[in-house]
Order: sequence, then structure tokens, then C-alpha cells
Amino acid sequence: MFISTIKSEGLAHLSYLLGDGGVAAVVDPRRDCEVYLHEARARGWRITHVLETHRNEDLLSGGAVLADLTGATVLHGPNAAGTVAYARTVREGESFDFGNLRVRVLETPGHTDDSLSFALYDRAFSEASAVGVCTGDALFVGDVGRTDFYPQRREEVAGLLYDSLRKLLALGDQAIVYPAHGAGSVCGGALADREFSTLGFERLHNPMLRIADREAFIARKLAEHHDQPPYFREMERLNLTGAAAAGPLAPPPLGAGEFAARVREGATALDVRPVAEFLGAHVPDSLALPVAMIPAFAGWMLASQERLVLVADGAAQAATAARHLARIGYDHVEGFLAPALPAWAAGGQAFRQVPAVSASAVRARIETAARDWTLLDVRGVTEVRKERIAGSRHVYVGELPARLAELARDRAYTVMCASGARATIAASVLLRAGFAQVDVFMGSTGAWKARGYPLEPA
Amino acid sequence: MFISTIKSEGLAHLSYLLGDGGVAAVVDPRRDCEVYLHEARARGWRITHVLETHRNEDLLSGGAVLADLTGATVLHGPNAAGTVAYARTVREGESFDFGNLRVRVLETPGHTDDSLSFALYDRAFSEASAVGVCTGDALFVGDVGRTDFYPQRREEVAGLLYDSLRKLLALGDQAIVYPAHGAGSVCGGALADREFSTLGFERLHNPMLRIADREAFIARKLAEHHDQPPYFREMERLNLTGAAAAGPLAPPPLGAGEFAARVREGATALDVRPVAEFLGAHVPDSLALPVAMIPAFAGWMLASQERLVLVADGAAQAATAARHLARIGYDHVEGFLAPALPAWAAGGQAFRQVPAVSASAVRARIETAARDWTLLDVRGVTEVRKERIAGSRHVYVGELPARLAELARDRAYTVMCASGARATIAASVLLRAGFAQVDVFMGSTGAWKARGYPLEPA
Amino acid sequence: MFISTIKSEGLAHLSYLLGDGGVAAVVDPRRDCEVYLHEARARGWRITHVLETHRNEDLLSGGAVLADLTGATVLHGPNAAGTVAYARTVREGESFDFGNLRVRVLETPGHTDDSLSFALYDRAFSEASAVGVCTGDALFVGDVGRTDFYPQRREEVAGLLYDSLRKLLALGDQAIVYPAHGAGSVCGGALADREFSTLGFERLHNPMLRIADREAFIARKLAEHHDQPPYFREMERLNLTGAAAAGPLAPPPLGAGEFAARVREGATALDVRPVAEFLGAHVPDSLALPVAMIPAFAGWMLASQERLVLVADGAAQAATAARHLARIGYDHVEGFLAPALPAWAAGGQAFRQVPAVSASAVRARIETAARDWTLLDVRGVTEVRKERIAGSRHVYVGELPARLAELARDRAYTVMCASGARATIAASVLLRAGFAQVDVFMGSTGAWKARGYPLEPA
Amino acid sequence: MFISTIKSEGLAHLSYLLGDGGVAAVVDPRRDCEVYLHEARARGWRITHVLETHRNEDLLSGGAVLADLTGATVLHGPNAAGTVAYARTVREGESFDFGNLRVRVLETPGHTDDSLSFALYDRAFSEASAVGVCTGDALFVGDVGRTDFYPQRREEVAGLLYDSLRKLLALGDQAIVYPAHGAGSVCGGALADREFSTLGFERLHNPMLRIADREAFIARKLAEHHDQPPYFREMERLNLTGAAAAGPLAPPPLGAGEFAARVREGATALDVRPVAEFLGAHVPDSLALPVAMIPAFAGWMLASQERLVLVADGAAQAATAARHLARIGYDHVEGFLAPALPAWAAGGQAFRQVPAVSASAVRARIETAARDWTLLDVRGVTEVRKERIAGSRHVYVGELPARLAELARDRAYTVMCASGARATIAASVLLRAGFAQVDVFMGSTGAWKARGYPLEPA
Repeated sequence: MFISTIKSEGLAHLSYLLGDGGVAAVVDPRRDCEVYLHEARARGWRITHVLETHRNEDLLSGGAVLADLTGATVLHGPNAAGTVAYARTVREGESFDFGNLRVRVLETPGHTDDSLSFALYDRAFSEASAVGVCTGDALFVGDVGRTDFYPQRREEVAGLLYDSLRKLLALGDQAIVYPAHGAGSVCGGALADREFSTLGFERLHNPMLRIADREAFIARKLAEHHDQPPYFREMERLNLTGAAAAGPLAPPPLGAGEFAARVREGATALDVRPVAEFLGAHVPDSLALPVAMIPAFAGWMLASQERLVLVADGAAQAATAARHLARIGYDHVEGFLAPALPAWAAGGQAFRQVPAVSASAVRARIETAARDWTLLDVRGVTEVRKERIAGSRHVYVGELPARLAELARDRAYTVMCASGARATIAASVLLRAGFAQVDVFMGSTGAWKARGYPLEPA
Repeated sequence: MFISTIKSEGLAHLSYLLGDGGVAAVVDPRRDCEVYLHEARARGWRITHVLETHRNEDLLSGGAVLADLTGATVLHGPNAAGTVAYARTVREGESFDFGNLRVRVLETPGHTDDSLSFALYDRAFSEASAVGVCTGDALFVGDVGRTDFYPQRREEVAGLLYDSLRKLLALGDQAIVYPAHGAGSVCGGALADREFSTLGFERLHNPMLRIADREAFIARKLAEHHDQPPYFREMERLNLTGAAAAGPLAPPPLGAGEFAARVREGATALDVRPVAEFLGAHVPDSLALPVAMIPAFAGWMLASQERLVLVADGAAQAATAARHLARIGYDHVEGFLAPALPAWAAGGQAFRQVPAVSASAVRARIETAARDWTLLDVRGVTEVRKERIAGSRHVYVGELPARLAELARDRAYTVMCASGARATIAASVLLRAGFAQVDVFMGSTGAWKARGYPLEPA
Repeated sequence: MFISTIKSEGLAHLSYLLGDGGVAAVVDPRRDCEVYLHEARARGWRITHVLETHRNEDLLSGGAVLADLTGATVLHGPNAAGTVAYARTVREGESFDFGNLRVRVLETPGHTDDSLSFALYDRAFSEASAVGVCTGDALFVGDVGRTDFYPQRREEVAGLLYDSLRKLLALGDQAIVYPAHGAGSVCGGALADREFSTLGFERLHNPMLRIADREAFIARKLAEHHDQPPYFREMERLNLTGAAAAGPLAPPPLGAGEFAARVREGATALDVRPVAEFLGAHVPDSLALPVAMIPAFAGWMLASQERLVLVADGAAQAATAARHLARIGYDHVEGFLAPALPAWAAGGQAFRQVPAVSASAVRARIETAARDWTLLDVRGVTEVRKERIAGSRHVYVGELPARLAELARDRAYTVMCASGARATIAASVLLRAGFAQVDVFMGSTGAWKARGYPLEPA
Repeated sequence: MFISTIKSEGLAHLSYLLGDGGVAAVVDPRRDCEVYLHEARARGWRITHVLETHRNEDLLSGGAVLADLTGATVLHGPNAAGTVAYARTVREGESFDFGNLRVRVLETPGHTDDSLSFALYDRAFSEASAVGVCTGDALFVGDVGRTDFYPQRREEVAGLLYDSLRKLLALGDQAIVYPAHGAGSVCGGALADREFSTLGFERLHNPMLRIADREAFIARKLAEHHDQPPYFREMERLNLTGAAAAGPLAPPPLGAGEFAARVREGATALDVRPVAEFLGAHVPDSLALPVAMIPAFAGWMLASQERLVLVADGAAQAATAARHLARIGYDHVEGFLAPALPAWAAGGQAFRQVPAVSASAVRARIETAARDWTLLDVRGVTEVRKERIAGSRHVYVGELPARLAELARDRAYTVMCASGARATIAASVLLRAGFAQVDVFMGSTGAWKARGYPLEPA
């Protein structure tokens, strides 16, 4: 009897392959699901079931694909939005045996109405004490699921989550927790940077579980801020019908001429290189989105069927970018510029550099009250609420494309975040929109604080 | 903060890479320890410590090798047999921080005098509640460590283990258990076939932890049977001084002529192919030891510095065999026969086949009281105690090389176990010793029971 | 400018990835064509063309699949049987540039009417001297293509091949030869066991090119014997329309019960383990076809849409078998027995062993004129013509399923070949057909000759 | 019989694994030689010999390491500088058989006195016609070896090479050429960008072989310019004694504090990220040496035992850098900064950016005769001889560290090469030396020409 965790970086998505006696199930498979087949094959197990804890909004489920490849049955909770086309609806108390491993269904709504948890039992030892539980987006390590997806029913669903969490705790301290996300996910607020826990440990130390009172819990949930990137709607739609398998995820190389031609024909140049490389020299009007930041930000920046050509440090990086994009439904990656800079420039093509400015330089501008200049803070609401540089203006990087009208093209902007990474993405958004005077505060609040410069509460 | 389990098949040995904040420790590394370097590198972590739960008797520690490759400090418990040469001795209560991960030392003697456990804390949440514990060979999933290594002090050390287990349980139900062995290990009796558990689950369902009374626990431990393969002494000796790194583990191919020459010069022909292949055709006087069974049985069959040449289905299988052998100190693998059978025979070399007999044929021999014939059961003592075929004679496969004098070369032997696998090893031992009439009961007790034939208690 | 050889073991099929300046072509891709994508991606090249030297009869082309995955154009010679659906027809003299690499088409009929060769030029050095040439099945290292596919036009096509070879030689001694097959292929007679050559070396040393006279060449070709497995017709048919991509090639494990049930429902049990393992213990009525021998013999033994369940030493071997089967069009691999023997027997299932007999035992039977006994030689016609054991009867292993009526079920058969490998396949065919007394001459002619026993010419 | 090419990128070094009948030799192994073991193992061959074409000056031979791992005999030509410690000296005409593959030694001095070539024969076909030849650094595809290593004997050794090349051509047009380097190597001048050729093709089209007259050949060789990086002497010294095996090549991650401390203690910060990333933001006083350019330039920039800490985009890039460094004898890589920029800046550490200037900006500076400004061209002598920008000053990038005294710290320098890559390396050298006003001409001569701006001959 084993349970194996498969982590998708960036999305901080956790899926599980679990089984016993030669048969196995996958909990919450991602779209590019060959990883489950390989591991099952290596262990000599057959995948007979896919267990979905809920309809994901932040990524495409691989349930339909995996069912197609293996003949597995997909199990999903009752969904008011309509039946999940490729799944069978299961309810509280149903159970499924994989050798001695028994999986029992718990309905744990709150994050979504169709949220399930799966309690795990070792029948060789006990059919009463769960040895583990897959908690989906109900319970994370150090946090609980967000409850902002039903704006009309915010109090109700926060209360539902409270009840679901009590139901989970009733399984006992001894159960290991297997959540659907780890640290860095947008599906919770403050997940722990720890990849293992138990109901007992969470009961004692998870701040949200320590709120004993139902009303206090609801109030706390209502006060949380969560962003909803526009692609969430598309994920929800596709996860009802079932996403198709991703393609081969190996974008072909494109020469400078062909790259430029495709951009002229409407493709977006997406620069997935490290941020410092974008600052050093980039293809004008390209969008900066370093490969590791695609999962978090592509859904804010790209339209559903957008044509893409990549600027990448080689084929491997382009392939990783294509994989990240495919996981959230962007399938139109037409190729990548090969070689990238400086060869692009050596071919006579134009390039652009973005100045990187230091904390002391930013401070000097503030102190000298630089004219027609704005320090643009693109961090998230929660970060800004905590502390900010006096005089800075806040627009969240994700919302920047939709809020450009609030900014003035004839002003100079220094973009900042916590390090300079999100600031570079935002700078590229401004440059693409025709803003001419844009630079990036390298180090951002990190450097600011390290220098001992003052921050103020928002 | 992560903990990653590295499993060595065959030995059912579990080691762990754990860490936080860019620094990591390895708990109980095996000898071929590049796996830890690769995973640490992939995560971008530096290995600064090696934590040994005890001096292993069933495998070579990679502690000295890993320290040499990384500069890590090795920590070991107080050992009466002498100081572990490559380690620093630690005691109860010492603690080591890896980022937010705190490792606290518990002395948990019983299995060995130097046994340590390592309680794991997430300092970002609690310095009081352990979130996990590395239990070494003190506590397994579903079982506890064996206590037969100090024959003069059997009661004392069983009692020490009882006390150590209570100390572990005091960490709380919420702690995840990370033992040094999984199902199939010779270091316990009846480990669960489950790879994950918690102190809470074990407290409730581990049969040995449910024995509340100290004296009853001691009595139960004294009644257990455990085998001690002769190589254990060598492992203990080498684990005091520190084993050298294993070689490249890629035995070269040997033509038939060179293979035969090396056998003539004293090398042992070790046939690591599947058992049915040995039965079908093998090199005369070779020892059958299918690659997956090397960890359990090589230590019974091979002398410490024995020269070996392998019969294998290709280079990959030979390399796996060499790796298994290196883990328990057999470094003199000089090559493998390539190609094996039938090419060996097509070169004019002699071959041998072993008859595989069925349950009905064995039963007929018993019922007709076949003359000068013995049904030789080579299963373990614990299995035989449970049930046996009437009239069979028992010699454990591991002890067979040392007990050949009890058998008669002019008798016919049908060798059996639970399936036919260990029986094939035993048959090869008999054939090498000059026994002429040897066959193997294919299916053994499994087939016997499936047919509904009677078994009796021993 | 590079050319990379991709070899498919078993079929001894050679395909090539060649290119320059970021663009590449694949010559004669196999069906499971991810290998070309991976290598092209690793090099950062885009595959724009597929070049087919002819319509293959011994394997499925990956042309259609690769075109689908990459958008490449497939080029094929003029085919009288009809247009290749997924290809564009090219003729003598057309050329295609990949950077400085120029590929020029030569029509080189003989092996097939649509056979092309592709001369390779480095435009940076010379547009007149070819630096290499892809010769398809026209010219191999040490041999030339077979010309037995047009029984009505045997002399004509042999003459066409003669002319084509002269056309190739006219490219000059300096050109490297890149043929479509290496040693072991069924598409030639006596290919050299060398993987590299030039037109100059072949002109000097290829026995068929040293036949200066056209008529003598034709006579020599007409005297050759070649086997035509029944699946050739199916390959030709599918290679006109274009084969679909192969599935995931990871057969699931099947428990003994399910395995047996599928066999009862009509699936064929295909044992892909090493031959000695089949001899040692096998599932009754299974067909022996060791994984490396599938490419050569499956096409004789299996019907076009035959359902298959495998007996294999684990998932990796089963996957390799499924890959070999898919390359020649067998897609219905439903799973593999896991675990195989001896676990199958331990579950109470029947098993069977085949006696392996030695050269001296076979000789004794011949000398004592064993009654109702036949020594059945299943080697190929060419081998038997060269030398045979007096008194043996010859039926080629490939033809055995169709010629069983020539044999008698109440006779004993000892099956032989050159080593015992093909003999084991043949023995399994006999056993499946109800022959009761079948054994295998382990070592076969190899052992016979090594012992100095006499052979006679056929 | 096979020959497999193993290419080491960067060094453009080609080594070969060749063999037949289960035994194999490696020609010119590199230091990190596990690649040969893996391939030989996968094929099931034993490496019995190492063949060295000459004592390399540009990389460390793996001969001693491979001999140590496999027991192979190393063969080397007669070396006046002393005996190669780990090798046996062989002479003209000696031959070695690997199955049917015969390797015959030819002494082909000129590039070095100890240069050998190895003619390859397939004994199954001919012992007279070579089917291939390993030409070491005597003959390349499209070029011949450099002859500048014996300054006192320049004419003599150029003449020796002429004679050696005639000896090679005498093997016949049909022989395939297997040289020790491909395009990009510093061991020749103008190697073709093609990875395959024959003596016939080279005889017809290699410009140096088309010089029929011995004196004309010598004159042409004397007119060539070749650079000799200072590390060549160290390679020659180590290749006499035999380099030790490289370490594990997995530099550990270093936090910002530890990274900075090691730099303070004397380690050199080596930035192996792409050039644009260095321009965008880098650790002050680090040396830019993108990972792919290490083989060509590290030997100019780094002292023999120099301590190094890397700035890299992750562990994989750091490991590749360490591998490249180890191949040329730099073993003291102590770790890599993790994470790199922008995290380094967010920790409050200083960073630096280098302006990238365009062709039009450079032209404007020239036309306006910018004061105290120099356009510094760091290309190679051969490139500059062909064409240059009027008014630029030339110092080869490799020689820059030794010629800094020729430049003035109070001037502004725009550094250029052919693209901006070498210019970035040079810019980092200037910045480390305290030059304050340094920028990089992105696109360099490539962009200049693409714009149609004028170049002049040197």
C-alpha cells in the first residue's frame, strides 16, 4: 500500500497516486498526465480510478485524458453547475477498495459546492481509523481553502467550510493530510512551506482550525482578500466538459525572420527567460513572463486562444514553458526564437533594455520629489496592506493590463514588487502599451528593508 | 520544508532526505549514495548532516561516503562497541536546525544500544509538537524492531525497547512515523505492507504497541524467531570504520571462454536471472540468486571477499545485481556472461535443467511413499511453525549451505518453499554440492493450498 | 550540418535525422516517432520534411504520424499501387535544401518500384560531389536489396536494381552510405555486421557490387531465397493510407484471474520472456516470442487484429514488447501477467515445462534410431541449404503455423535451430497445437558443431 | 562492428567508442568519461583499450581515468617531452583487433610530434582497404591541424603535417574520416560545420588538401594566426602525468551571505548565465562567462588553481558549468549563488547593470567623435584582419586580462565583437579591473552589417 505525491511546480498543485494489490487511483490528476502512467507502470500497478476532490478553477484536470488512456472511472462530487461530463457522481459514504486500501468519500463543501475529501483506511489494520485523508482544497497545511467563489453566498459557504473542517477533524489526530495544494498556491492564503502534516498537527497549529467559533471563522474568511484571474472562468468551463490531452509540448525553433513575421500576424511574443535577462536585452514589445511565473500570471495576461511565440534560452526552457501553459489551457505555442539575444540583435533586429534601479536611487527620487514620476507598486493587496513605501501607487500586476487607463503614458514609472520579478512583468506590460519611461526597482521592498528604509502600513 | 523517502528495494531500507531553507540532512544513507546528491542538487539544497539512527547490521551505511563527498557531519548515537570512526556522537536532547526544521535527538535503545530517533519540528508552527519522527529500527509501521542481537541481555534489551517506544509515543498522535525499514525487511517480523503511518495510528493498531504491559511485551519479544545471516557481523564491523564508496557498478561482459576460465580460477557463477529461467537452462554449478532476492539471501550464501561472475539477462540486470551486492559489501563482481543461454549452449558448453514439479505430482509421491525421496521445505521458521506439509523435512534456505551434512547425496530431493523461488535457490545449493536428484516444487504451499490439499501445524 | 542515425533494434531498421541551419528532415521514420522530436528539440531544429525511400513492407512508416505532429511535408516516390495518401510524389532530380545541406532525389527502383535514394551535398563545399547518400533498401552495407516482391517481373526488377546501383556508384567513392537497414534485417540476405561504409568501400568489397555483368547479377538475385511473412501485405496496405500513431505502449498489469479470463475470451497468451524461462516454466498454451525476436517472427505468428496478453518479466519488458508489436501493426496488447511465474503457479494455476536436450542426447537418439521421433529443424532455407543434420526434417519456423498438417500429433519432436531460440518458438507452436511430446535441442547446430559432430549439405 | 561519436560541446571535441565482438576501444576520451562506460554497458561491450591520437593541449584526457575504471590499456604515440605515464608507446604499423575490427597505427606528426592516426579495417571484408580512419588533429572536416606549437620548428612541423596528410590520403577515397574536433574547435582554423566526411571528399574539397605543393602548404600554414591560451601549458603538463577523475560536479547552493564571504576570502565570482542576463543585473566584480563559452575562454581568464563560486540560473546550469570547467582542469568550484538575481538584490546586496548600445548609437558616437571614448573590438585576429569598423581599437578578448595596462581607466569603452557575447565577457573584465564607463555594443558587427554600415579591411 503506497501513496505517492506528484507536485506540479508553479501551480503548487499536489496530486496523488495511491493503491494496493496491483490497482491504483489518481487523486486530482493534472492535464499532462503521463507522469501517472509512468509511475504506475514502474510499480506494476493498473490505474482503475480517478478521484477528483472538486472542479478546479486554477488548472485543467487530467481526469478525462487519464480515463481515456487507461479506461479508469472518474469520480466527482455533485456539481450544481451541471454534470462533469466524463465523471460519475459520488456521494457521502460511498467507498472504493484498492486491495486493502479503502477510500471513503466525504462531502466537504465550502471551497466549492462539489468538494469531496477521501478518507484512507488500511483494511488489514482498521476499517474505523483513517490513516490518511485527501483534503482537496478544504484543508491545507497551515491554512484552509478560499471561499470567495460564490459572491452571493459568501457567509453560507464560509460556514459550510467550517462544518466540513469539523467533519475532517472527526477522523482523528492520527490521519495524515494530503491536500491538493502546497505553499505558493493561489487557492489558499498562507499555506505553510511544509509538505507533510496530520489532522492532529493541524488541529493544534493551523491558525484557521484554532478558531473554535463558527461565526468568528466566517468573519475571518470574509475579511480575506483573494484575486480571481480571468482565466478561472475558462478552467471551470473546460473542467465540466473535460480537457483534451495536451499536444507534444515541444515548440519548434523559429528563425528571427519567421518569429518577427508571426508577431506581425498577431502572435504575442512571450519572453520566458529570467527577469534579469529581459532587463538586459529583449525583443521590443514582448511580454515578460519567466517560465516559473507562468502558472501564476499567464492567466491574467493572456487571452483564451492567444497565439504565442516564445523567447527562451533554448529548447528545454521553451518546452517547460509550453507545459506550464498547457496546464492552464494555452495550447497555441507556435515556436520559440532560436537563437535568442544577442543573436537576434546581431541579425540587425531591434532590441530594448530596461534600466534596473537600486533602493538608494529610488529613495533619492522620492526625497527629491521627482517630477512626473510614479513609484508603481504591483504587489498583491495582502502584501500592500501589510506595508508599503510612502507615496507609491498600487496596481496589482495581474490587474495592470485591465487598468492601464488609470496611468499616464507621459509619466515615468519605476515599477516595484517584493524583489523585482513581478515588477519586470509589469514593466513589460507598460512598455507594450506604449509607455516610454519605465524602469524596474531591482530588490524592491526586500532591498528597501535591508537598507533600513522606512515602510508604512497601507 | 520537505522530507523525501528513498527506498532501497530488496533490503526494504528507507532513508530520508529532509531539509528547509537550502540545507538538508540525510537520515540513514545507503552506500550507493549518489541518489541523495542528485535529489539535493535538483532541489538546490546542500547536504550538511548525515543522521544515523543506529549502526546497521543488514547493510552498509553510506555515511562515510556521503560525508566525504559533501563535507557533511555524521551524527551517531553512543556505541559501546567503539566509536563510529567517521561520526560525532550525539546524545538525548541535542538538536539541529535546518532552516525552520528542527531535528531533536532521542535515545531509543533496544534494537541496538546506540539506537537514536529524530523528532522533527516545524519552528514556524511549534517547537513543542513534533510533526514527524524518524524511528530507525525502533518502531516500524505495524511492528517494532527485533531485539535478538544481544543474546546475553535478551530480556534487558526487550525492556529497553519497550521504554523507547513509550518515549516515542509521548511525542503525540500527530507525529508522522518515518522508520528505517518497510515491508520485507529482515529487521522486523511482520511489518505492514503500508508505507505511511503516524504515532497515533500505530498507538491504536500496531499489535506490539497495544501490549500495554512491559513484562508481556518482553515475553512476546523473547518468543520471536529471527534469522541472523553470517554477513551481519561483517556489516557491523564495516559500519564502525566506514565503508568505502562502491565502484562503478557496471560489470563488464565476459565471453563464454573467459567466464569459464574465471570459474575455474575460483570465481563463483551467480545466476541472477528469474527462477524459471534457471530451471529452464543454467550453467552447471552456478548458484541461483535472482536479482531481487540478492539483498535477502546473498549474505547467507556468499563469503565476505568471494569472487563473482554473473549469469544475467543483459547488462542492465547485471548492473542491478552488482548494486544490490555492493550494498551489502560484495564488491568483487568481475563481469557477466554475455550472451547467456542459449548462446552458451550453442558455443558447446554444458548446461543443466531442473525439473519443475506440480502440486499433484508432489502429492502423488507422498501418497505412494516414494522411496529415497524427501520433500525439503526451505521456508523460514515462522512460516513453518504456522503450517507445513506432513512428511516434509525443514531446513531454512539460508542455513542450507551450513547444514548440507544433514542431507544425503544419494537421495532424491524435491525442494519447496511458498512459491518455488527460494526452493530454486536451495536446489542450486544442492546441485552445486553434488546432489544429483533435485527438483523444484513449482507453486509450493501456494499451489498446495489452492488445490485444497491439507497442511498441518508444525 | 549533421546526420544522426536512429536504429530500431530487432527490425534492424535505420532512420536518419539530418539537417542544417535549424531545419531538418527525417528519412524513413518508424511509427513510434517521438525519438525524432526529442532529438530535434534537443538540437533546436525544426523538422520540415519526411523523406521516404520506399513504401516499407516490413514495418509501419511513421511518416503520417510525424507529419501530423510537426506539419512536415512527406516526400515519396511514384507508386504504381496508388498514391501514398499522406505524401507528395517526387521524381528524379528534385532537390530540397536544409540550410547548406542539399538533398537531391534519385529514382532507384528494383527493391520496389517506388524506391528513391537521396544524395546529400554540402553546398558550402560542392554542389557536385555528394558527401553521402541515403540508399533505402537499394544498397546495404555488404549486400543489396531483395527483389522478390514482384513475382511476375523477377528478372525485370533485378535488372532495375542493377541499374539503380550503377546510378548510385556514379555519385563517387567519397559518398558515405546511409542505408535503411543494418545487419539482421529481413530486407536483405547477408548484410554486413558493420554500421558504416562508403560507396567506395562498397564498390570494392560488396559482393553484389563486384558482379560487373548485368545478367550475372540478375541470375544471382533470382537464385536467392527470401521469406515473405504474411504481415507484409498488411504493412504495404497501411503504408499507403498512413498508420495512426501508436497508443501509450504501457500495457497494464493483469492478475492471474483476469489474465486467464482474457485468454478464455480469445486473447492469445504471448510469452515474451527469455527462451530459457519459457522452457523452465510457462503458462500452458502460450506462444513463446522473446521480446527481441518479436520484430522478426510476430508477423508470421499473429493475425492482423489479434488480441494479446503478455507473459513478461515485469512492466518494462512488457512495454518494450508492446513497442515492438506496435511497429508492425499489432495494437491490441491488453496487459501483462503480473507477477508471472512462479507466482502464477503459487496461485494454483497450471504450468508447463519443456525439456531441453543436449547435443549428445540428440545424437544418441539419432544413432539409436529412436522410434516415432523426428528431429525438426526450423532454421531458414538459406541456412539449411548450407548444412544440416542428417535425418532431420525441415520446416521453417515462420511457416510452421501454416504447415502443421504435415506433422503428426502422435510423434515426438525435438525442435532445433542454430541455438535453441527459434526452436523454442517452434516448440510453443507445436504445444499450442496439441502436440504432446515436444522438446528443444538446446545449443542446436552450434553445440553440434562445437562437439565436432558431422553436418551434411542439404 | 560499430563506431559511435561522443561530442563534447564547447570544446567541439570528438571522441569515439568503436568495437566489435564484445570488445571496444575509446579514441581520445575526455576526462568526465562515464559516458563511455554507459554506452559500452548498454551495448554489452567491454572497453579494453584507449587510443590517444596525441597529447591534447586544449583539454584533459580521460585516458588515465578510464584505464583506472576499466583496466584498459592506453596507447599513445612517441612523445619527446617524456613518456605519457599511464600509456604504452606504440609505433607505425602496430595493429590491434577488436573482433573483426582491426585498428592499425599510423604516425602522423605535424600538429604534435606524437600525433597518431588509426586506420580502421573490417577483416570480414578486407585487410587492405580501410573503411575509416581516426585522424586526431591532423585532418579535420574542411581543415587541417594547426602547427604553431613548436615556434622554433614552424617550417619543419608544417612540412611534417603535409607528409602526414599524404600518408592519410593514401588510405583511399573510401575511408570515412573521424577527426578529434568539429566546428568551433580552437585546434584548427576553419573547420567545416559538417560532422561527417571521407578522405575522398576531403581530397576533393578540403582547401588545405587541395594545395598540392609542399612549400605552398608550408607557407600557408606559417601565415595562419592561432591563439594559445595560457592554460594550454597546464593541459600538456597534466596530460603527461594523467589527470585524476573529476569530482561529483554538483556544486552546492550558497546563500548570499556565504557567497559574499567566499568572494571576500579570495574566490572569483564567475557568472555563467546568458550574456543578456549579466547585462541586465549582475553581482558586482563578477566575471561573465556564459556556460557555453567556458570551454573557449575560461583558460584565458582563470588561473590554474583559482577558487570559484558561480552565479547561475539554478543547479543544472551550475553543474554544466562545473563539468565544462573540470574538462579543462578547473576543479575548485565551491558552489553557486542560489537564488541569484533578483533575490540577491532583494537581500540588500549591491548589483550592477551594463548598458547595451545599438548599432545606430555606436555609429552616432563615431560620427560625433565622442570624447574620451573608445570602441574596443575584442574579436580574434583572423576576424579583424577580414574586416573592422574604422576607428575601433583591437584587443583580443582572451588577451585582455594581460593587456589592461594598454587601456585607460578614465576613458569610456564600448566593447564589441561579432554579436555582443564576447564583448560582454570583455566588459566584465574591464569592470572588475575598475574601469567605470563600460558598455556593450549589442549586435556588434552583425548588426552593423545588417544596417549596411561600412566596414573596412584591417
